Amino acid sequence: MECIILDDLFDYDGSQISSLWAYNLVDVQADSIIAFRGACDVRIEHMIDLEDKKQGDMIFSTDMLHFIIEHFDSTDLKLVYARQRLFTAIVSEVLSLHFSDIKRAGDDLFINGKKLTVSIASTSAVSQKIHFGINVTHDHYGSLDEMGITGDVVGNVLREIAESYLAEFIDMEKDLRKSRPLDVI
Amino acid sequence: MECIILDDLFDYDGSQISSLWAYNLVDVQADSIIAFRGACDVRIEHMIDLEDKKQGDMIFSTDMLHFIIEHFDSTDLKLVYARQRLFTAIVSEVLSLHFSDIKRAGDDLFINGKKLTVSIASTSAVSQKIHFGINVTHDHYGSLDEMGITGDVVGNVLREIAESYLAEFIDMEKDLRKSRPLDVI
Amino acid sequence: MECIILDDLFDYDGSQISSLWAYNLVDVQADSIIAFRGACDVRIEHMIDLEDKKQGDMIFSTDMLHFIIEHFDSTDLKLVYARQRLFTAIVSEVLSLHFSDIKRAGDDLFINGKKLTVSIASTSAVSQKIHFGINVTHDHYGSLDEMGITGDVVGNVLREIAESYLAEFIDMEKDLRKSRPLDVI
Amino acid sequence: MECIILDDLFDYDGSQISSLWAYNLVDVQADSIIAFRGACDVRIEHMIDLEDKKQGDMIFSTDMLHFIIEHFDSTDLKLVYARQRLFTAIVSEVLSLHFSDIKRAGDDLFINGKKLTVSIASTSAVSQKIHFGINVTHDHYGSLDEMGITGDVVGNVLREIAESYLAEFIDMEKDLRKSRPLDVI
Amino acid sequence: MECIILDDLFDYDGSQISSLWAYNLVDVQADSIIAFRGACDVRIEHMIDLEDKKQGDMIFSTDMLHFIIEHFDSTDLKLVYARQRLFTAIVSEVLSLHFSDIKRAGDDLFINGKKLTVSIASTSAVSQKIHFGINVTHDHYGSLDEMGITGDVVGNVLREIAESYLAEFIDMEKDLRKSRPLDVI
Amino acid sequence: MECIILDDLFDYDGSQISSLWAYNLVDVQADSIIAFRGACDVRIEHMIDLEDKKQGDMIFSTDMLHFIIEHFDSTDLKLVYARQRLFTAIVSEVLSLHFSDIKRAGDDLFINGKKLTVSIASTSAVSQKIHFGINVTHDHYGSLDEMGITGDVVGNVLREIAESYLAEFIDMEKDLRKSRPLDVI
Repeated sequence: MECIILDDLFDYDGSQISSLWAYNLVDVQADSIIAFRGACDVRIEHMIDLEDKKQGDMIFSTDMLHFIIEHFDSTDLKLVYARQRLFTAIVSEVLSLHFSDIKRAGDDLFINGKKLTVSIASTSAVSQKIHFGINVTHDHYGSLDEMGITGDVVGNVLREIAESYLAEFIDMEKDLRKSRPLDVI
Repeated sequence: MECIILDDLFDYDGSQISSLWAYNLVDVQADSIIAFRGACDVRIEHMIDLEDKKQGDMIFSTDMLHFIIEHFDSTDLKLVYARQRLFTAIVSEVLSLHFSDIKRAGDDLFINGKKLTVSIASTSAVSQKIHFGINVTHDHYGSLDEMGITGDVVGNVLREIAESYLAEFIDMEKDLRKSRPLDVI
Repeated sequence: MECIILDDLFDYDGSQISSLWAYNLVDVQADSIIAFRGACDVRIEHMIDLEDKKQGDMIFSTDMLHFIIEHFDSTDLKLVYARQRLFTAIVSEVLSLHFSDIKRAGDDLFINGKKLTVSIASTSAVSQKIHFGINVTHDHYGSLDEMGITGDVVGNVLREIAESYLAEFIDMEKDLRKSRPLDVI
Repeated sequence: MECIILDDLFDYDGSQISSLWAYNLVDVQADSIIAFRGACDVRIEHMIDLEDKKQGDMIFSTDMLHFIIEHFDSTDLKLVYARQRLFTAIVSEVLSLHFSDIKRAGDDLFINGKKLTVSIASTSAVSQKIHFGINVTHDHYGSLDEMGITGDVVGNVLREIAESYLAEFIDMEKDLRKSRPLDVI
Repeated sequence: MECIILDDLFDYDGSQISSLWAYNLVDVQADSIIAFRGACDVRIEHMIDLEDKKQGDMIFSTDMLHFIIEHFDSTDLKLVYARQRLFTAIVSEVLSLHFSDIKRAGDDLFINGKKLTVSIASTSAVSQKIHFGINVTHDHYGSLDEMGITGDVVGNVLREIAESYLAEFIDMEKDLRKSRPLDVI
Repeated sequence: MECIILDDLFDYDGSQISSLWAYNLVDVQADSIIAFRGACDVRIEHMIDLEDKKQGDMIFSTDMLHFIIEHFDSTDLKLVYARQRLFTAIVSEVLSLHFSDIKRAGDDLFINGKKLTVSIASTSAVSQKIHFGINVTHDHYGSLDEMGITGDVVGNVLREIAESYLAEFIDMEKDLRKSRPLDVI
């Protein structure tokens, strides 16, 4: 698995959740997490969560940290959802080094009673993907700015989160290669 | 999925990680999390982690909170390991309401630089299982006692953790039933 | 799994076989069987069975009982086809309480040498689905009317079939949670 | 898939549910259904259903028709249970040509309020298997004898059931090879 | 699995890699390998290999042997890629009876330092497919003509390759039905 | 995936086919191919191929090259058999640089009408494994010695084969990460 941090700003419009986006962008031929900063404005045709689509929800933010994870080892929906929740917990752990009162509810993080993040996970016939976005600044929702995470720290947080997921993935892959199967009653 | 809290003390000797233990004990015919309090003394023949077995490690504690999770929906090792890590994060979240400085490293939790927990996950041909144990008291390792979690709060924590995993599982199962498949570049 | 009976007439045009139709219609976030009564007129672009599509078959009936089953636990074609055949057998069992000579051939039921039903099963990247339709009245094919199933009994049969499948599914899920793995010669 | 009818009597003691029993017996290297007649006396160590094992149930009959199905195409518990229920429905369909009032409840058949059959299904790491037994005669439970199925008809029924499952399996395998994937809402 | 040799010329434009093409063409309801001879001109919208698509590569040849393999037993990408590489090795083995110095590199064959073949593999929600093409003649790339394979031998080679894969597949399916599961350390 | 060449002689007695043998031996926590030279004497209780076990076959050689492959990414029998056949073809390709007339039949290689190799593949609940052995010398069967592969070349061949499989595996994993899913007719 590779961890790739984009140096330039890149806006998320929902098409980046498509399978093989990472290969198309940077020719990566491995499972990957791509992290970048940019606006978020998901067009209705790219909405994966049917609840958002039905409600015509806007998923909009002028400045976010984005993480795009793609795994090719399985197309099991249960696995990608477990990974999404684990990723959400990892984000919470990294941010909690900077802000003491973050609440996780499923794939959402909250500060001061306000939603800080957006996320979606799904599969195609060839891969599973997760998008996770964190507001850098926002008028109504929670943001890194409100948590006192500003300046260079924003970029550090981007990198720490991506590298933490990579490390967690590698660690799990190693652990499952030393476990004996279960006995049965 | 069912969440079952055992009222009486119950010692963990490693045989409880076997598939179908929950059915044998309480006739549950659902995915389950069983939570209880008791000593921990894993016999070598029940060691699932080959690293422990090779090293002849003792997994021993006189008083622990135990959680035994069993899922029958898949025997995919990757899925049970993702769930194990997610469970570890959930334990950390619940305990952090009582103690502010818990570190997670994979499937381990640490306080004051000392290991607080033990955990293992694996599969048989019919189910996947996780064991997770938290020291209530301990001379050398970290413990709930050291975190100031004592008396009735111990039982509350046992219940909160088990119910939090149940709620998380139900929430994931619901979320994956409203997501459209991914497009492809 | 949830069983939902629609009170109002609802016509089947083939788009209802799409994944997530049930969520879109009634916000259900569980495996489901949705049962309703209405006409059937499948447009060519919604034909899943390529044999029908190649032959330009009409799948048309002015009045049918419809059952739409969706499972998210697997996208295995073999599993959805086994479930489709089992559902067909269940329909036969329920109807045989009212009419003594029903023949099942795969996913089709016949009375008096005439085809009584239509059915299809398939998968997308996120779910597996089955459609099953039973003629209430028909000029050329077999129908409930011809079997003497009329008036309120039609609605009762709609409900009994849907509830029988739900009960069968729950029962299977329970049974597989108390079976030890096989030995090997 | 092959259908093999054993001409000689053969007693079922539970070891026949083991994976690869068919290969060991008759060198078959295909999915198979093996049908034979003989006594049934399942030893406790071969009990797959933990409910029977816990209760120390006797699974005993002096004369039964036995069917042993083995599939190597998947080790999914859900699939083998769906196939087991479908097989049970097929048995009911074949027997109903001889006796008009058979009730199916899951993997059990009943006549005159008495249990006629026994069945179990499970998986190993290499195959999935089903055992299904029908009493030919019995003092307390239902039997073919009680249904008027005697003499040569017993052997005919043995063959018809086995061949019906084979035909159903072949038919499903063919049907799933002409179905387009589902659209998504 | 069926092996079908088309007698007439048939041009490959990339649409033949679609799932269910074989059923549409010749009504086959089995896993299949279809072999034929014809030109190759893959339109951009049918390019499965995103590398080719990104580079706007032409996949063009006036005369090729084509093999289209479709399996419905799994939609696992890893399996179809292992089968593709095995097929490539089989092609090399058959051709090496006519030409002594063939190099295989992944899914490509080379003679005299020139690429002889093209291939792609992928999955949909219902099947996995492989296309493999061998130049019969070519101005710049390697070809059967250059290997001295001309006249009737071309047709013989077409048939031998297709029949060899069929035989290999049948042999693997048989072998996996006599293997005991592994012990564990 | 890691490729490990053992410098010292190591005898194969069949226990090395057990899951997690590589971890136990060299602490590797990755998919692996372990290559070594030594005698071969498989005890009956370690025979995975039931045909050998039934026939009481001896699998014996005083000097062999051994390859033990373990993958944890799937426990699909079809996948491990496809990989075993591919590995056999790779061995043939490497050896054909030294000897011009090698025949492959499934998982066996032959020279001068004599069997040169032994192989088995299977799965446990946690991994899939392949053993492949090549006679270095032998009185009755084919051997490297007979092919003129002697001295240092034996060790070179050991390494080349192992490294070729590693390279093939890495190449497949990369290729499947740039392929779009199939369209459907």
